[in-house]
Amino acid sequence: MASQLSLAEVSTHKDAKSCWVIIKNKVYDVTEFLQKHPGGPNIILKYAGRDATSAYEPIHPPDAIQQYLSPSQHLGPLRDADIRDLEVHEKQRERTKEEIRVAEARKQRPPLNRILNLADIEAVARKVLPHGALSFFSAGAEDELTLRENARAFERFFFHARVMRPVSKCDSSTKILGFDSSLPVFVSGASTAKLGHPLGELNITRGCGTANIIQMVCTYASIPRAEIAAAALPSQTLFFQLYKSTDLSVATKLVQDAERLGFKAIFLTVDAIVITTRERDVRSPWVLEAQEGKSQYYSEGDSDGATNLLGTSSLHVNRNNVLDADMSWQVTIPWLRSITKLPIILKGIQCVEDAVLAADIGVEGILLSNHGGRQLEYSLPPLEVLYKLRQQRPDVFSKLEVYIDGGIRRGTDVIKALCLGAKAVGLGRPFLYALSAYGEVGVSKLISILEREIVTSMRLLGAARISDLTPELIERVDWEPVSRMSKL
Amino acid sequence: MASQLSLAEVSTHKDAKSCWVIIKNKVYDVTEFLQKHPGGPNIILKYAGRDATSAYEPIHPPDAIQQYLSPSQHLGPLRDADIRDLEVHEKQRERTKEEIRVAEARKQRPPLNRILNLADIEAVARKVLPHGALSFFSAGAEDELTLRENARAFERFFFHARVMRPVSKCDSSTKILGFDSSLPVFVSGASTAKLGHPLGELNITRGCGTANIIQMVCTYASIPRAEIAAAALPSQTLFFQLYKSTDLSVATKLVQDAERLGFKAIFLTVDAIVITTRERDVRSPWVLEAQEGKSQYYSEGDSDGATNLLGTSSLHVNRNNVLDADMSWQVTIPWLRSITKLPIILKGIQCVEDAVLAADIGVEGILLSNHGGRQLEYSLPPLEVLYKLRQQRPDVFSKLEVYIDGGIRRGTDVIKALCLGAKAVGLGRPFLYALSAYGEVGVSKLISILEREIVTSMRLLGAARISDLTPELIERVDWEPVSRMSKL
Amino acid sequence: MASQLSLAEVSTHKDAKSCWVIIKNKVYDVTEFLQKHPGGPNIILKYAGRDATSAYEPIHPPDAIQQYLSPSQHLGPLRDADIRDLEVHEKQRERTKEEIRVAEARKQRPPLNRILNLADIEAVARKVLPHGALSFFSAGAEDELTLRENARAFERFFFHARVMRPVSKCDSSTKILGFDSSLPVFVSGASTAKLGHPLGELNITRGCGTANIIQMVCTYASIPRAEIAAAALPSQTLFFQLYKSTDLSVATKLVQDAERLGFKAIFLTVDAIVITTRERDVRSPWVLEAQEGKSQYYSEGDSDGATNLLGTSSLHVNRNNVLDADMSWQVTIPWLRSITKLPIILKGIQCVEDAVLAADIGVEGILLSNHGGRQLEYSLPPLEVLYKLRQQRPDVFSKLEVYIDGGIRRGTDVIKALCLGAKAVGLGRPFLYALSAYGEVGVSKLISILEREIVTSMRLLGAARISDLTPELIERVDWEPVSRMSKL
Amino acid sequence: MASQLSLAEVSTHKDAKSCWVIIKNKVYDVTEFLQKHPGGPNIILKYAGRDATSAYEPIHPPDAIQQYLSPSQHLGPLRDADIRDLEVHEKQRERTKEEIRVAEARKQRPPLNRILNLADIEAVARKVLPHGALSFFSAGAEDELTLRENARAFERFFFHARVMRPVSKCDSSTKILGFDSSLPVFVSGASTAKLGHPLGELNITRGCGTANIIQMVCTYASIPRAEIAAAALPSQTLFFQLYKSTDLSVATKLVQDAERLGFKAIFLTVDAIVITTRERDVRSPWVLEAQEGKSQYYSEGDSDGATNLLGTSSLHVNRNNVLDADMSWQVTIPWLRSITKLPIILKGIQCVEDAVLAADIGVEGILLSNHGGRQLEYSLPPLEVLYKLRQQRPDVFSKLEVYIDGGIRRGTDVIKALCLGAKAVGLGRPFLYALSAYGEVGVSKLISILEREIVTSMRLLGAARISDLTPELIERVDWEPVSRMSKL
Repeated sequence: MASQLSLAEVSTHKDAKSCWVIIKNKVYDVTEFLQKHPGGPNIILKYAGRDATSAYEPIHPPDAIQQYLSPSQHLGPLRDADIRDLEVHEKQRERTKEEIRVAEARKQRPPLNRILNLADIEAVARKVLPHGALSFFSAGAEDELTLRENARAFERFFFHARVMRPVSKCDSSTKILGFDSSLPVFVSGASTAKLGHPLGELNITRGCGTANIIQMVCTYASIPRAEIAAAALPSQTLFFQLYKSTDLSVATKLVQDAERLGFKAIFLTVDAIVITTRERDVRSPWVLEAQEGKSQYYSEGDSDGATNLLGTSSLHVNRNNVLDADMSWQVTIPWLRSITKLPIILKGIQCVEDAVLAADIGVEGILLSNHGGRQLEYSLPPLEVLYKLRQQRPDVFSKLEVYIDGGIRRGTDVIKALCLGAKAVGLGRPFLYALSAYGEVGVSKLISILEREIVTSMRLLGAARISDLTPELIERVDWEPVSRMSKL
Repeated sequence: MASQLSLAEVSTHKDAKSCWVIIKNKVYDVTEFLQKHPGGPNIILKYAGRDATSAYEPIHPPDAIQQYLSPSQHLGPLRDADIRDLEVHEKQRERTKEEIRVAEARKQRPPLNRILNLADIEAVARKVLPHGALSFFSAGAEDELTLRENARAFERFFFHARVMRPVSKCDSSTKILGFDSSLPVFVSGASTAKLGHPLGELNITRGCGTANIIQMVCTYASIPRAEIAAAALPSQTLFFQLYKSTDLSVATKLVQDAERLGFKAIFLTVDAIVITTRERDVRSPWVLEAQEGKSQYYSEGDSDGATNLLGTSSLHVNRNNVLDADMSWQVTIPWLRSITKLPIILKGIQCVEDAVLAADIGVEGILLSNHGGRQLEYSLPPLEVLYKLRQQRPDVFSKLEVYIDGGIRRGTDVIKALCLGAKAVGLGRPFLYALSAYGEVGVSKLISILEREIVTSMRLLGAARISDLTPELIERVDWEPVSRMSKL
Repeated sequence: MASQLSLAEVSTHKDAKSCWVIIKNKVYDVTEFLQKHPGGPNIILKYAGRDATSAYEPIHPPDAIQQYLSPSQHLGPLRDADIRDLEVHEKQRERTKEEIRVAEARKQRPPLNRILNLADIEAVARKVLPHGALSFFSAGAEDELTLRENARAFERFFFHARVMRPVSKCDSSTKILGFDSSLPVFVSGASTAKLGHPLGELNITRGCGTANIIQMVCTYASIPRAEIAAAALPSQTLFFQLYKSTDLSVATKLVQDAERLGFKAIFLTVDAIVITTRERDVRSPWVLEAQEGKSQYYSEGDSDGATNLLGTSSLHVNRNNVLDADMSWQVTIPWLRSITKLPIILKGIQCVEDAVLAADIGVEGILLSNHGGRQLEYSLPPLEVLYKLRQQRPDVFSKLEVYIDGGIRRGTDVIKALCLGAKAVGLGRPFLYALSAYGEVGVSKLISILEREIVTSMRLLGAARISDLTPELIERVDWEPVSRMSKL
Repeated sequence: MASQLSLAEVSTHKDAKSCWVIIKNKVYDVTEFLQKHPGGPNIILKYAGRDATSAYEPIHPPDAIQQYLSPSQHLGPLRDADIRDLEVHEKQRERTKEEIRVAEARKQRPPLNRILNLADIEAVARKVLPHGALSFFSAGAEDELTLRENARAFERFFFHARVMRPVSKCDSSTKILGFDSSLPVFVSGASTAKLGHPLGELNITRGCGTANIIQMVCTYASIPRAEIAAAALPSQTLFFQLYKSTDLSVATKLVQDAERLGFKAIFLTVDAIVITTRERDVRSPWVLEAQEGKSQYYSEGDSDGATNLLGTSSLHVNRNNVLDADMSWQVTIPWLRSITKLPIILKGIQCVEDAVLAADIGVEGILLSNHGGRQLEYSLPPLEVLYKLRQQRPDVFSKLEVYIDGGIRRGTDVIKALCLGAKAVGLGRPFLYALSAYGEVGVSKLISILEREIVTSMRLLGAARISDLTPELIERVDWEPVSRMSKL
């Protein structure tokens, strides 16, 4: 289409007046796009006139740039000689301390048969993940109090184990929105997976396919949804997590594409209409700098740190200008019904009142969630909301399916949620850690651990099938156990 | 007026019989004043016959000495030659370890764009403040349990976040006593600011002027109130915090001066009729001594440490002999009404019973406060008092405006107080830390952080305006979260 | 019977096709048995064609192999010359770091008169036990939260001590199922004792005989039950802890043998129908390896760590294929009644509902227990179940005898359980620690400490006999004491 | 009376058959007394045939030996030459590491004017006290959980501070059993004071005399009661703490002597009928040994550590054979009434039920106490018992005077007890620490600190006199403050 361009020419377009970047050996004019970039213009300007592939690739699907740029902004391929130069340069480049550390850590990974639980997987991932990716995956909002309390909530619930009940045959399978699942567990909110592994979300898709676990795929998946759908087994169920943008046509296309690709439900994200400050993530590039011994490149006197310093190393993505902060029960649900026949689930319900509204308006399900403690600090732990719902409005459970996510790390956590009425539970970060640490087999391992833990605990509870898990088997205690997390 | 005096002559008046001191090159006879000094005579006697400027200046407004001494006690200026001698001496003086440490710490301050939250600001201030100033700002009463619990109280309140409510337009402005404020936040009890920055409280005045935040100015401000009033923008609102002295004429003059200077409300301090022992502050000169390697100068055998050892380095000011410990509902409120038309707010209400009395007697507002944990140990955290007031006497909120201060460090803290019925919240120490660390831009930064946090959290709560913040959005949980402070 | 076999010949049968092992100088063909081994085949295959005595001996009664192998699988004795070779080889073998550490630690044991309490005994045992044995004794399920909470539950109960009651004569003796006991204490669930001491459970039998304390002997005792019964004094009472296998004839024989040997009650284990993952125990061989500096011998890529890596050093015994997971109230109790006249006690009741069922079905007693925190994580602490039973169904205490075990470490713990209605309490690990540290005198010491603590505390409570311990003397407080364990 | 005896002769009576000891240069035959010694025979046998003065003196009143031995057992004085030999020997003896440490620590004591609170005093005492004395003073029963909880209980009570009440005049004086006291505070259970200071309890007597504080003097005071009574000012009030022995004539004499000496009330100790194991104290000689590098002198194999190893360095006094464990409401109170006209107070009431019995039987007062956490572990904290009494049986407060002791370290602690209905509070350990650290001026300092704290806090509470301290001013909160102790 276009003639080849030289590095020399590209390098003259290096500021906001005329800004070209190279991504995977193709040259793009992003001058106009600067102000539309969800992550803000600064992060692009850092690469103006240069190759931006290494910054672009881990956090965007390959086709993202096509979506946003007009054909005329596709300037054409880089010259072959210059491509070779870039390759040589990349090869000869001295590895950073961080790259060396990560490579070494990957060599030291324990064999998979020494992994006993999800905390073990996380521990490996924390060692092998690049600093910035770990910050992005693990961060919670502000002081991360909600992040911690999500998990600690499970420690307040104890079992009334029943004995002398035949459980040699114990069936942990269930149905979610009518779809078979080998466990009452699904993958929730695990996106940007390429940060942890080159195959990104595909590791989840493949691991879940074998184990018959449902994966919810995010609007912001780092692998194109079509590719994920193609990697799924014929019998495999995928759900779609929708971030509704302010642009209705974009949102409509997303939903209809998902339906066309065979996704089986729409999880509408309602708890992330603006993105809160995940301070761990914002700080991560600075910390890395210090580790690498680089000098500070942020100028003193800049009066607003939290927004414009989300520089290149930061994965803290600010999508506040594209997310629809004006969704409403009256408008958004009818619109969504009008464009899809898929069941609708609201992801991010955080109180009993909204659970009741959701039941009244007739959606097929709600996911009690505070976005894994990444959004509103002091949002109640989902398990506590579930408990309140059970206490105050048990009728809701018969009107729609209720799920929760946030802080689930053990088979007993899953069982507790089910005892209180959840149909299934979602896990996010554990899948990201699993694929980061071991790729697809890590995902398989994670599922097999959960299965062992769920089945063993069901038996010891006297439960031979999922429907045996009832509120009578569980109690919220009035003391504070010594946290299991303090041990890990 | 008076002829010049020599250092030699001054040096002969060096004890309680005849005590002269030099302050900013002027000589004063303080022999009679010794016993009236709010801080006690010993601290003055340490400088008898000498230059006391360095001790006087950071904790007194420049005009303080004029107020207290009669004209005949103003003995006149120091001789020009002696002034030069003092200057040379000061220049040649070897810097103390502490001065060197502080200067170095100021150089190492992170750029402002790396400050993400109020804890970051405090962390910088803790490094750059002189030891004594930090002790004075940060100290609480006795074991500082109340100080800690004030802040921890906020961690027990969680949100019932509401979703699917249009919040793209979110307005955080409100009115306080009818005056506009861009945030439901005001500056409370941040005095003696010159300890942290040469411009003292003026940093707050200017930072608040730009941001349209109301400042409460203290009786004991280290900058003259007239100067503060002059620095305010025409549209800017200032309140006056009155410490009522036993001398009624002094108190009357203070109030009427404040009204004349354009202050818009009188916050009568009712929780500091005597000053409690802030042990951290009392100990601070000793600790400094140890750091400097000086020998002990307190003689053994002295049987009462807590009062007479409040030596020169200590900023622990004992105003017990001037504060009116006999204020009463029956006498004090009518007196105050009789001398001013300004609205009256009681600062330091600590229980529901007194909130009710205040409403009955008809003051315009109450500030639920325990003086930032600096007065009565085991006074209930203000947020707990607010919660009780909401539970037990919600009618009070319709009779006067209710504010709280103490322990507020996040936008979510502000929102919690408002959900429970507070009209606005006060912050004190954070403003002192901000100006100590970065001067006026530190104050601006603090306000912009609070604004970002408040607006983001309001949106995630489903609140588009201040009046949307209602008790239904909040819940006091019955468990103890892992404290956010443990992380900091 | 059979002719002597050579080491050379044995060594040719070294895999699953033909697997021979030597145990105490006798050769066995375990090829067929591999798949029936409760611990799985891998652990045996590690010793295929070799001497397996050191691995076999500490965790099996000497007659175990006879029970499981047919006569034709007893291949005969090793050649005398080869026996001598093995002995020489064993003597010349270099001691491992672990063996050296243990030998040194045993020399450093404090004299018994410096042991003041059960925590002291445990501290000694933790030093002198081989790593693997300690892991096996001390491990709890998963994160060991239940293990910790079992003990912490006792800290929430405080006494209403009564004064001015004559207690110079204080009698701590009681009856358990009608049998005399010098203390309201019995030995519960302390098996596999040979791991800690060559005389194994016999140390307990002898120490309890002298002190008149009842011992419950486990199906999986490491000393033959007949030998234990023979070591008991004529007046001494023993109970039998039954793990019911799926093979009814095996189970029947076990019970009838026990009755014939003079055991006085059957404690049917109902909380261990499958064995949960005790991660501390599973990890123990790996940790030991690291200490010994050996290389890893588990191959990477193995996808299921938790089951097949229970290698030779691990004592984590997987009996899941022999335990009856289909016991029921309707079938199991009548069957047990039909084969024995002994009283039946259900060991492992974990909630009020099952305690009521047990009373209704007419068993003689229940042992409230969650298997010392070794089975279902988040099973309620037995003391909490006891407290609930007292609150909700006090009638149960008059229908059967109620015992508890789990977390008891002090005389006050025993007294608390009795105040709430327990007839007696069981201790397990403390007996294992006592015999590991000091053998039989350790067991005697443990009992004498408990007696001193129980009698002193009874006196200070105003109780002169066991029947004086009533619910009015105890209260569950609503705060969390600083744990005594944090001190130890 | 008797002729002089030589060291050589004494040294031949060195075992249980004939046991002589030298105390302050006099020789005694204690052969028969061995079995009657409250501390057991072993501790004496360690000094058989030798000078025992250094072990005897700190824990016995000088006249103790006279009381217990018959005239014929007073063998006479040591030879003058031998006395000189002993003195020379003592002078030339090499100081132990512990003696050197203590002497150095005493030199480093901070001047008294740097002592701000009771924790400061305790910190000094912990440094200057000999190891054994500190262990004896500080020890609590078993794990010291009760000891800690006694103090922590105060942290759960918060104030409803009242403002606008005239308090410039604030009177902290009260009456205890009708006797004037400058503060609602008395000295409780501070005996064996010679361990901390050569003048022992006299330091308390003198310090309290000046300050008009009442001292309770113990049966086991290390200074003769007559000497204490003689040291008191004419106006000074002393109470007597009675440990009733089984020997009624001894008990009667003690009470009647006390009355004759002018003591004004009898505090009958009811919570120490047997002495529990204070493990910290029992261990103290061993720890000291380890510090001194001495070899172990306890033989292995001794099967009962807790009783017979209370060797010479241990101050753990076992009076179990002399204390009356058969006291009763029916017998003991009438007996005591029959031998004295003094008011009777029961020291050691630990629950509401016994408080009611005491009121019914008509004693003049009760001291809610668990012996400072030194007796029954898990006895409720006295403040919690007081709170229950206020809630459940407020009528009791009008029938007798109620006091509490245990864990009081701040003026606010005192005020809390008074708000709940206590007439006064006792402090024990703080007085021992004060005299150990600074002698009599330490005691005066302690009282002046308490006065300052009490008066300041009363004013800030809006209380001008003791009778203003009412239950409305206080609240038991339902959260756990971060303990003030964690800071110290």
